[in-house]
Amino acid sequence: MRIALINENSQAAKNGMIYNSLKKVADTKGYTVDNYGMYSAEDSNSLTYVQNGILAAILLNSGAADYVITGCGTGEGAMLALNSFPGVICGHVCDPSDGYMFAQINDGNAIAMPFAKGFGWGAELNLEYTFEKLFSEESGQGYPRERAIPEQRNKKILDVVREHTLKDILTCLKGLDQELVKGAVGGEKFSELFFANCKDESIAEYVKSLLA
Amino acid sequence: MRIALINENSQAAKNGMIYNSLKKVADTKGYTVDNYGMYSAEDSNSLTYVQNGILAAILLNSGAADYVITGCGTGEGAMLALNSFPGVICGHVCDPSDGYMFAQINDGNAIAMPFAKGFGWGAELNLEYTFEKLFSEESGQGYPRERAIPEQRNKKILDVVREHTLKDILTCLKGLDQELVKGAVGGEKFSELFFANCKDESIAEYVKSLLA
Amino acid sequence: MRIALINENSQAAKNGMIYNSLKKVADTKGYTVDNYGMYSAEDSNSLTYVQNGILAAILLNSGAADYVITGCGTGEGAMLALNSFPGVICGHVCDPSDGYMFAQINDGNAIAMPFAKGFGWGAELNLEYTFEKLFSEESGQGYPRERAIPEQRNKKILDVVREHTLKDILTCLKGLDQELVKGAVGGEKFSELFFANCKDESIAEYVKSLLA
Amino acid sequence: MRIALINENSQAAKNGMIYNSLKKVADTKGYTVDNYGMYSAEDSNSLTYVQNGILAAILLNSGAADYVITGCGTGEGAMLALNSFPGVICGHVCDPSDGYMFAQINDGNAIAMPFAKGFGWGAELNLEYTFEKLFSEESGQGYPRERAIPEQRNKKILDVVREHTLKDILTCLKGLDQELVKGAVGGEKFSELFFANCKDESIAEYVKSLLA
Repeated sequence: MRIALINENSQAAKNGMIYNSLKKVADTKGYTVDNYGMYSAEDSNSLTYVQNGILAAILLNSGAADYVITGCGTGEGAMLALNSFPGVICGHVCDPSDGYMFAQINDGNAIAMPFAKGFGWGAELNLEYTFEKLFSEESGQGYPRERAIPEQRNKKILDVVREHTLKDILTCLKGLDQELVKGAVGGEKFSELFFANCKDESIAEYVKSLLA
Repeated sequence: MRIALINENSQAAKNGMIYNSLKKVADTKGYTVDNYGMYSAEDSNSLTYVQNGILAAILLNSGAADYVITGCGTGEGAMLALNSFPGVICGHVCDPSDGYMFAQINDGNAIAMPFAKGFGWGAELNLEYTFEKLFSEESGQGYPRERAIPEQRNKKILDVVREHTLKDILTCLKGLDQELVKGAVGGEKFSELFFANCKDESIAEYVKSLLA
Repeated sequence: MRIALINENSQAAKNGMIYNSLKKVADTKGYTVDNYGMYSAEDSNSLTYVQNGILAAILLNSGAADYVITGCGTGEGAMLALNSFPGVICGHVCDPSDGYMFAQINDGNAIAMPFAKGFGWGAELNLEYTFEKLFSEESGQGYPRERAIPEQRNKKILDVVREHTLKDILTCLKGLDQELVKGAVGGEKFSELFFANCKDESIAEYVKSLLA
Repeated sequence: MRIALINENSQAAKNGMIYNSLKKVADTKGYTVDNYGMYSAEDSNSLTYVQNGILAAILLNSGAADYVITGCGTGEGAMLALNSFPGVICGHVCDPSDGYMFAQINDGNAIAMPFAKGFGWGAELNLEYTFEKLFSEESGQGYPRERAIPEQRNKKILDVVREHTLKDILTCLKGLDQELVKGAVGGEKFSELFFANCKDESIAEYVKSLLA
């Protein structure tokens, strides 16, 4: 599994700490972590949480990432932005039990975490423990286990609803303010990480046209 | 303000308790609470969290409600479903500080709460305290206050993105499995509450056609 | 009611913020807040959490305070220290529901809060909301209300146990390292606040002898 | 390490669930868990949280247990009761980060957990995760690690203070209402578990005299 980390500007200074917690857990599972930044509060390419949503949608829909870890001050803005795009199911996850239950019940492909609210002593412990439980078992097996069948059914119905209510990803991306999208893919290491892993020609072409 | 309460099947038994906590706070503000059910675990009209999303979208887009309080076991499913529709900005809100910050930073029109996770002694206190803080001040003023301007800007950008990425509400509703939508509007008191408050002719007509 | 605020060295920089949150709530109730410091990280009189316990015990046993608000990084150290003295029943209180339940079930006279763990955005909201609920009703009425009788009975049995297992307060204080006790009462405003409100001659005399 | 589990009456029905979570973690460490009950809500030997304190004090001071896991509705009553006895340092621990930090900073020998407050879906996950982190590393190494020295120093000072302020354990036990103490040691499996592991002759004798 290829996990992308995306941080927005207000909590960009915490990128290194979050990356380390995530990598520590991913390494034990043999997963790869791609750090798409922002890398620090002084990062020249600033991302808003709306841009986190755009970037996450590009990565997940193109297959460049299988999972996205993101967040903002409370996690709510990033969660809302990611869920505004097709092909993204983003939970709001604050603690280890959240991590486990979101993976098992909702079987999404992204989480948005609070990187400022409640983020004091022990925050890096909570991150690590949450990643451990988010990735502790194959997702989508239901919680509690005896509710697996209705939970899996609802997840599939939700997927169908979202496929219908949201436009297709390229229509979504092309219809947005293109400066906003450019900013989302303007990170220092974006091209290096993205083009090596993108599995969708049409999205790759569109992104190339933007960066040209 | 007219607040709609919507519960799904897994936690339907808690509807009365949630309604009481919400009404207690709404009354102090002069707000109205419309309880759309489910009213109990035995309610003949069962709602899944996906249907909570459909119902919330109908209520908010038609002006029949100004705010929706909903949830499910962890709150994640209901949150995902609501955010799958245009005209809905649904936070995942677990405690009083969440309530205040979501109102001030994200200025949404719906929250999804966990009605099973962490729901033990004190759960009814936590509900009441959370509603108090969600509705304690005019929303959208920023948190912390000195960040109001970028936060309001991001909220507007998110609104524009969602207007673009999501299809219009009637296209959304008409394209879904119509049995799913019928179930969403099949509650015992739906017609009584909805038609008295709906402000959109075309949504009212569509809903009437469904119920015919 | 006279409420004393006591901070230890590791989180002393937050004293002003905590005081403001506490005073905001106390003012609405007509309660007085005595700020015993530490007042800042640079305060010349440093308090450890053990000294918070000594100071709290002096204030509560002498009647100079009716309630103590204290804490440390996680709140655990301060809680342990306060509960090491007779006449003190100190809860570990982290959120508004904790505040309400500790007041109603345990009917103590002190709380220790985490001033670093989980202390990020919204921490000052959580403090204020917690004080609101801690002091929202007369304490000791039971939670849930129908359990008031066994809860009040257990509280009385606990009081009797602690009266027996702990030595009397002057024996406790006089048997400690007197430099440790001196530090506990060495704050800039200690004498001004304490002697004006102390209701116990023998404790006042002992403290005077220490400060001589 | 020999870990004792003690439940009081209000949450006795959860004993089996708590035991399973604890045993699952203890087994991975090679620790033994002694379940002192209560074993169910119908257990003929009812324990109040005050009696949890008495029993914990007997087990820890006699060496029959090295660590005590206990709790009550909010965890506050059990925590207060345990800390009313010499030789016991009991934290109030609600989540995995609490578990880790209490072990590393405060290096206690008991925790009291909330078995009703916040105890809903995911509660058994939270228990298991908390035990994992409580016992994840040798305790008392400091958190954050660079604060180990002052934290260890404060812990030693607290131990000395408690040795002084609290009477010796047999004086404590003998001075209490002996019916209260008898109830604390009246559990179905108490004698079997206790006498096999007790390392203190005088406590064993006193307990035998009670049970005679």
